[in-house]
Amino acid sequence: MEQFLNENKPRIDAALSAYIAGLDAPDTLKDAMLYSLEAGGKRIRPLLLFATLHAFGKKSEIGLPVACAIEMIHTYSLIHDDLPCMDNDDLRRGKPTNHKVFGEATAILAGDGLLTYAFQLIAGMDNRVSAEVKLKLIAELAKAAGPEGMVAGQMADIEGEGQPLSLSQLEYIHRHKTGKMLQYSVLAGAWLAGADDAQVAQLDEFASHLGLAFQIRDDILDIEGTEEKMGKKVGSDIENEKVTYPSLLTMDGAKEKLYFHIEAAKHCLKAARVQEEILRYICDLVATRDY
Amino acid sequence: MEQFLNENKPRIDAALSAYIAGLDAPDTLKDAMLYSLEAGGKRIRPLLLFATLHAFGKKSEIGLPVACAIEMIHTYSLIHDDLPCMDNDDLRRGKPTNHKVFGEATAILAGDGLLTYAFQLIAGMDNRVSAEVKLKLIAELAKAAGPEGMVAGQMADIEGEGQPLSLSQLEYIHRHKTGKMLQYSVLAGAWLAGADDAQVAQLDEFASHLGLAFQIRDDILDIEGTEEKMGKKVGSDIENEKVTYPSLLTMDGAKEKLYFHIEAAKHCLKAARVQEEILRYICDLVATRDY
Repeated sequence: MEQFLNENKPRIDAALSAYIAGLDAPDTLKDAMLYSLEAGGKRIRPLLLFATLHAFGKKSEIGLPVACAIEMIHTYSLIHDDLPCMDNDDLRRGKPTNHKVFGEATAILAGDGLLTYAFQLIAGMDNRVSAEVKLKLIAELAKAAGPEGMVAGQMADIEGEGQPLSLSQLEYIHRHKTGKMLQYSVLAGAWLAGADDAQVAQLDEFASHLGLAFQIRDDILDIEGTEEKMGKKVGSDIENEKVTYPSLLTMDGAKEKLYFHIEAAKHCLKAARVQEEILRYICDLVATRDY
Repeated sequence: MEQFLNENKPRIDAALSAYIAGLDAPDTLKDAMLYSLEAGGKRIRPLLLFATLHAFGKKSEIGLPVACAIEMIHTYSLIHDDLPCMDNDDLRRGKPTNHKVFGEATAILAGDGLLTYAFQLIAGMDNRVSAEVKLKLIAELAKAAGPEGMVAGQMADIEGEGQPLSLSQLEYIHRHKTGKMLQYSVLAGAWLAGADDAQVAQLDEFASHLGLAFQIRDDILDIEGTEEKMGKKVGSDIENEKVTYPSLLTMDGAKEKLYFHIEAAKHCLKAARVQEEILRYICDLVATRDY
């Protein structure tokens, strides 16, 4: 498992840098795009895609452009979320946020550029992937990232600020803001691997539970984590009076819910009848991570 | 000609509204996306696509999703350009800009949503268009709009502020900031219509000249136009000490260059051997428009 992560993470890092370096674009724009891509992300989404390919006995290589497209969209969303008019964050993964280094205008453009280039990457994949699968990958990526997915979640999150939220409203936010792209990462792997409908359905459920578990762990870490490990300020949810799983369910209740989703995820994974060991390992990582 | 525009513009307006209305997304987000889409654009890009289809004897309908995708991307670029950290414009087409009505955070998300949804629209086109053509439309749209296209132009424009620019630097900005998407609008029509390589090459040249003519006319109107017709403040280029065609070439020189590009565009159009009357008419509109 460790070996799988150790082999694949550098592959993603290198490909992301190479794609940006190859762009015919103004240097400042490329620098700003690269800065956030190289800021030390966990690469959880690309690794989920690779782990899903592995679950079907497929090599990572075929999924590299989609993995990079996903990471670019994730990175664009962080750049825009950190802006003064959004979360106004100065620090991300222990480094100054994009707009702190390049200014707001360039940060917005770097985000726009990463989002747009993601689609260029998938549309330009080589012919080992059929045109039909590429189109599905593009249509579903736009759904997961766009106004019916991540952007909807971010909008609901902003509108929910300072409001008392119910558990179902909180889940709407997380299912959209982080869930859809995590789900897409798994499904993209399944489509690329030629999974059958039943497997796709089980993996979809698997990823949905994993996504919620991921977010619950995030909320827990904002209370129990350390700034040193997280690379960002902790305790900001309480400071900002944000509704979280611990605030709605108590810390014990949140941890119970976390383990419920992890177990449910593993149950779906078993039902998908794939080589599940790496996806299981990522499940456990999500449940126990301290960063 | 008038009839062509009168028939097709309402078709675009209606389709744009219907696409947004059909989204499963938070109301505020949909409202913000719709607000700028319905703010009375000239629809020059979608009309160029339809006019190109017409030049090959094809009906507009087949191109409607691409036409709307193009207008959504154009609209997203205006929303982001108008932000306080960019051009800081309060007025666009005679109405308050998006962030003035919805706030900066929602305006950024509305832009992100429009950009992302554009790709969803094309990927979801029906099967009268082949998967290969859809992929080409997506790949080239991302190139035209992204870090090698419109975003590059916007970045160069920001970096050029307050700098003395040469004519070739000014052309780089315009070829990217507005040119690439105008070119794409024509080429998308040609690809959809099944144009041959020689025709595509001539139409590419045609659109390149038209794009520069469009921008030169814009610069002229910022001096000779009226706020009433333009729906925005005029004279802002001089106020912001912006390098423009008139500032580099004198007003007479700029007008000469405008007519050069219009004539060159018409020459390419003739060489493309298509039913050229509506594209010619749009050329003349671009050269003489007062809004």
